[in-house]
Amino acid sequence: MSSDVDTINQAADRHGTAGHLEAAGAPAVPADGTLRVLRTGEFAFETGGVLPRMDIAYETWGTLDEDGSNAVLLLHALTGDTHVARGASGEPGWWDGFVGPGLTVDTDKYFVVAPGMVGGCNGTTGPGSAAPDGRAWGSRFPFTTIRDSVRLEARLADALGVDAWHTVLGGSMGGARALEWAVTFPERVGRCVSIASTAASTAEQIAFAQIQTRAIRLDPAFAGGDYYSAPARTPGERAGFGEGPVAGLGIARRMAHITYRSDVEFDARFGRTAQQDEEPLGSASLERGRYQVESYLDHQATKLVGRFDANAYVVITEALMSHDVGRGRGGVDAALAGLDGVEFLIAAVDSDRLYWPVQAEAMASRLPNCPPVEYIRTPIGHDGFLTDVEQLSGVLKRTVFTR
Amino acid sequence: MSSDVDTINQAADRHGTAGHLEAAGAPAVPADGTLRVLRTGEFAFETGGVLPRMDIAYETWGTLDEDGSNAVLLLHALTGDTHVARGASGEPGWWDGFVGPGLTVDTDKYFVVAPGMVGGCNGTTGPGSAAPDGRAWGSRFPFTTIRDSVRLEARLADALGVDAWHTVLGGSMGGARALEWAVTFPERVGRCVSIASTAASTAEQIAFAQIQTRAIRLDPAFAGGDYYSAPARTPGERAGFGEGPVAGLGIARRMAHITYRSDVEFDARFGRTAQQDEEPLGSASLERGRYQVESYLDHQATKLVGRFDANAYVVITEALMSHDVGRGRGGVDAALAGLDGVEFLIAAVDSDRLYWPVQAEAMASRLPNCPPVEYIRTPIGHDGFLTDVEQLSGVLKRTVFTR
Repeated sequence: MSSDVDTINQAADRHGTAGHLEAAGAPAVPADGTLRVLRTGEFAFETGGVLPRMDIAYETWGTLDEDGSNAVLLLHALTGDTHVARGASGEPGWWDGFVGPGLTVDTDKYFVVAPGMVGGCNGTTGPGSAAPDGRAWGSRFPFTTIRDSVRLEARLADALGVDAWHTVLGGSMGGARALEWAVTFPERVGRCVSIASTAASTAEQIAFAQIQTRAIRLDPAFAGGDYYSAPARTPGERAGFGEGPVAGLGIARRMAHITYRSDVEFDARFGRTAQQDEEPLGSASLERGRYQVESYLDHQATKLVGRFDANAYVVITEALMSHDVGRGRGGVDAALAGLDGVEFLIAAVDSDRLYWPVQAEAMASRLPNCPPVEYIRTPIGHDGFLTDVEQLSGVLKRTVFTR
Repeated sequence: MSSDVDTINQAADRHGTAGHLEAAGAPAVPADGTLRVLRTGEFAFETGGVLPRMDIAYETWGTLDEDGSNAVLLLHALTGDTHVARGASGEPGWWDGFVGPGLTVDTDKYFVVAPGMVGGCNGTTGPGSAAPDGRAWGSRFPFTTIRDSVRLEARLADALGVDAWHTVLGGSMGGARALEWAVTFPERVGRCVSIASTAASTAEQIAFAQIQTRAIRLDPAFAGGDYYSAPARTPGERAGFGEGPVAGLGIARRMAHITYRSDVEFDARFGRTAQQDEEPLGSASLERGRYQVESYLDHQATKLVGRFDANAYVVITEALMSHDVGRGRGGVDAALAGLDGVEFLIAAVDSDRLYWPVQAEAMASRLPNCPPVEYIRTPIGHDGFLTDVEQLSGVLKRTVFTR
């Protein structure tokens, strides 16, 4: 294990601001689900930026086999993070019930690694991280792409002793990252599972994303991206949480959240019901109250604002807009046609109206020897990749996680 | 014709700011498609507001029969206006090709009337109109509902000598207005045609709307709704066009516009193509350029900002959120069940993902003797009610406009 891997006391610091590094003599086999950070050197971004130092945050579960053949890379979605599953802290992960001992991604059998995106706000270097001058990178953080994260994750694989991943798996933006891994390093990817995603962000996905970044930039508290009261100086610190353009970030989140769900679900859950003790029809003397669905969106906004940095949201959203495995490779068809050494499983949510199933079908049809698209069937929409991922357990155990 | 009907020289003033009233002796039969305004007295809003004076802007085409039996009420959508079709000015209307001499809504045979919504910005009294103190109503403009507009339109019908409409017809919010007419004044509606609409705004429609109003209010130039450099003092004047929270209004429009179209259309028109001479991938030294679809949305935003007032957008959007023909009437089912004296035609756009076809089906199933839902078939999405309305011409001529 590389000596520049620091372990952060996740249980204490996950939602705090002051992380600490473990003393020298950290355990060789870290506790499952513990936030750790690999410090790496200079990093050149795909489109020209350079940072003198790049940290990558990650968590692991289970143990790497002697022959290094059981490593699984789990890649998070837009506002996800490294905490995929429970571990030493017992704190719930965002894919609990899917990843863990005896579960579909069985951490008794596989060594599972979950890294954070470049530009994020949960340990991997991002706009809230301290630059050499002691200030947050802020507006100076370079434009980044999905490919930048893949290349940084390759550094992590090297440091962990993983020559090739047994499986690379992700949903939504995580599915885009997984596919980009297969295209960038086909010799390092045994199997690739992409759920509720696409080979290239579409015009509509770009359109929804643009509005979100514009709402954040419209907020006067955005201040051109330099709004941090203090940068994140150590990997466990959080910068930009709950400060800066929180109203704009909240609008972006509301917007995104609608696209993650479905009309059917909203209608069933909320209909036109008014929030308790509020009157959605205004009057001559009172400001309008809210419908329940508005209160729900407000709640989603508040939750995200408390756990995410607005700049990181912009940076990662623009990275997702850039997603196109065909860029510089002769187009999507050409990029996918040569991947006959990777086993693919492509899945979609039938009610998804952000990553329409037809996009998964198109991706699968362009991949050599790809089995038919698997479907998560739920009325909930895109978020089915989180809420109903267990529907894929059967096929995953039969064809991917067969140990 | 009522003496408090003023005619505005539309050709000169439609896009200007200074309207003028015609001299005494205005023609008894006004020119087709000419902006006119009926001045009415005190108006009490459904939810408690009161204005001392209420103007309603409208245009007409054709001539009312002696027996008053050929009057058609055409109701516009969210950012629509009274100029449905060409007329004396020759200026294109938003339903050209559908309304006019010899067309589906044949102005040689029918007397067509198109009024503007309460709270709008095109002649009907709205937040940009001058209050008695000489300032714009601005933040003081009362909360308004679809029903307020229907009641004001009834005043217009009285003034025009229309006891009952041969047909009330509209698309999107216009369809909501048409249905509300049938429920409020069933004895005054012979036929009701509602296209791409619903009996009550759904949770998802409310959710999309909330984000739009929040984006406008987030703009620091919103100034609490009191941003007018000058109010509209005469009915032809425009207030708030291109000033105030134009950035926020632009975001709202982008948001709305995506919901008006479809993924399929965006993909076919734009794909991932970059705007000419722009580089959507940022670099270390340059701000990111735009994808074509972003430039397109920017263009949509700019166009709306130049022809609409942000406060009017908020007021009318909140009116649309309030849309529920069942409110205070025992629910939607009860409100619709008694309408056996009105002939209905309900239409939907098959690719609509704002007013999902299932909502039109639900509405039709609750109406007595309602024929099957008619479909506009197009990949374009909701805006099919504008771009492809001619698909309804056959059925409309057979069953509604049979003269």
